[in-house]
Amino acid sequence: MTHSSWQLNCPVQLGGDEQRITLAHGEGARLTRRLIDDEIRSRFRSGPLDALPDAAHVDVTGNRIAVTTDSFVVSPLFFPGGDIGSLAVHGTVNDLAVSGATPRWITLSLILEEGLPLPALGRVLDSFAAAACECAVEVIAGDTKVVPRGAADGMFLNTTGIGTITGSPPAGPQTIESGDVLLVSGPIGRHGMAVLCAREELALEPAPRSDSAPLTGVVETLLRAADGNVRAIRDATRGGVSAVLHEWADACELSFRLQESRLPVSADVRGASELLGIDPLYVACEGTLVAAVAPGVADQVIESLCSRPDSSGAAVIGSATDRTICPVTIRRTLGREQPVDEPTGAMLPRIC
Amino acid sequence: MTHSSWQLNCPVQLGGDEQRITLAHGEGARLTRRLIDDEIRSRFRSGPLDALPDAAHVDVTGNRIAVTTDSFVVSPLFFPGGDIGSLAVHGTVNDLAVSGATPRWITLSLILEEGLPLPALGRVLDSFAAAACECAVEVIAGDTKVVPRGAADGMFLNTTGIGTITGSPPAGPQTIESGDVLLVSGPIGRHGMAVLCAREELALEPAPRSDSAPLTGVVETLLRAADGNVRAIRDATRGGVSAVLHEWADACELSFRLQESRLPVSADVRGASELLGIDPLYVACEGTLVAAVAPGVADQVIESLCSRPDSSGAAVIGSATDRTICPVTIRRTLGREQPVDEPTGAMLPRIC
Repeated sequence: MTHSSWQLNCPVQLGGDEQRITLAHGEGARLTRRLIDDEIRSRFRSGPLDALPDAAHVDVTGNRIAVTTDSFVVSPLFFPGGDIGSLAVHGTVNDLAVSGATPRWITLSLILEEGLPLPALGRVLDSFAAAACECAVEVIAGDTKVVPRGAADGMFLNTTGIGTITGSPPAGPQTIESGDVLLVSGPIGRHGMAVLCAREELALEPAPRSDSAPLTGVVETLLRAADGNVRAIRDATRGGVSAVLHEWADACELSFRLQESRLPVSADVRGASELLGIDPLYVACEGTLVAAVAPGVADQVIESLCSRPDSSGAAVIGSATDRTICPVTIRRTLGREQPVDEPTGAMLPRIC
Repeated sequence: MTHSSWQLNCPVQLGGDEQRITLAHGEGARLTRRLIDDEIRSRFRSGPLDALPDAAHVDVTGNRIAVTTDSFVVSPLFFPGGDIGSLAVHGTVNDLAVSGATPRWITLSLILEEGLPLPALGRVLDSFAAAACECAVEVIAGDTKVVPRGAADGMFLNTTGIGTITGSPPAGPQTIESGDVLLVSGPIGRHGMAVLCAREELALEPAPRSDSAPLTGVVETLLRAADGNVRAIRDATRGGVSAVLHEWADACELSFRLQESRLPVSADVRGASELLGIDPLYVACEGTLVAAVAPGVADQVIESLCSRPDSSGAAVIGSATDRTICPVTIRRTLGREQPVDEPTGAMLPRIC
């Protein structure tokens, strides 16, 4: 790996050799402790992490918790609108939020490649800490491993999010009924397109910018406005809106009909998608959700969402129908109805 | 990476190209779903994982939980006495157990390198599932990422363990007093030496075998026998017994004196350590704990531990004294007392 992504794309100045991760940082002895003291504890001092226990002990309210886990292998580590640190927090918090939980705690596990510049690590950890603070999740446990040069690509993060459950979570996609309305909370495909353009160093103007952001507030607004009539919510990450709808179609045994004219797509993503020949329906979001709601509440839900700055682009994009031969179809702007295929993969690797 | 560790050491037969992980397995679309259905859900069907929710919701007893996280980058993936799958479960369960918690749930996040043979993945997942079953922890959340050939070394695992807390956890190393007794639950250094010998393909006879095993029962026995007089318990992983004692010496501001003649070391580890010039004190265990107990209960604790098959080699190894210039010293078999240095690292990379 002479040209790993962090070497090509790392925006921080590289210092001398003493400013890089070495194998000795990963072996549990003095250098590991110094790395953890300097880089980790200095940033997460207030919580249980400061004492570096084998396991953090925290008090829960209620008797039900929500748990989600994700690994982040995004390349490059830094991209317009975010970096692997903020992305890890947002992705984790959003998985909890769309499941109906209140995000409370997060773990942070690092796999570092020998040679990674310490300033790049520091910048990612700063971003992680800031995002965790913004999302009101406490970093309660962590781990750091170092692998030899060439055995990883810069750094991988893993997070587990834990939330508490107080209200009633959405019933789930199996409860979607024919006639239910599909909506998104904003323009689609922004995250995947931003990462792809950054990785390929495409100098598009305007450059697509990731939508990476917490969805906690948006979910709260949605649940309140729908008053018990939300069937399912999902953050449309890997595979984009298409992947969510294919999974839901399987769960409820219905079909979904979309209208291309109603799909919110930002100008930067539209430009990139036309240039690259990639439909934004297949491209990951990291701060935009898909929801299925009962038809009677769709208008009030959209009105409430549009009143928030972080979901001002919310829109109805289609509806559920009885099952047809295609699980998902789209009426194109020119009027033809086409199936939305489920790609087998390989279009957009390493976008989260 | 033409000679990554899984290529050199994978004990499963490699099939044709269709039997390997491809980038398309990681992109959230059809192949990802097939991989997850075939490899993950088939093995963890009984729990919340079967429905593949964004976040698993589970009921907790009591109002306090314990959380720990670890990444596993061990090389090779398979070694005498275990593999990365069983190791991940044991390491996670043990972090919870030594903190005084009852392990209940575990997450499993996979980072797979393109080209990894599917049979190797299957074997690791079988091992993970069997160990989770043995340890009575339920696999409740997961994630799978694929990175291009050369961007990871075969596979990395990440786990987060969650436990419930019912009794009183040990008070912690800061409560250790001068005169307290140090003990281990069995022979030390077995895991690190087993991995090192497997990686370097040293054909030692007998080949060191990892001690990877759950410590839940051993901790229960220890706590019961000590009747409230356990100060601290730790599984001696990265950095071995030495790293634990250096950390504890910092916490309690005392020194520890060990006696080499009392340190339990198995014949296979002793042979390898003499050949390689590595003191077992610095080598990781994955099923052996260190504990500090009040002197009055040491005999009854050792007797109870020795009555269990999985801690039959338990032994007192030293005691705490007032602080001297060296945080940890050892009286060698020939009678001289020496400082136990804290190595800066670089002796044993990637043993967990």
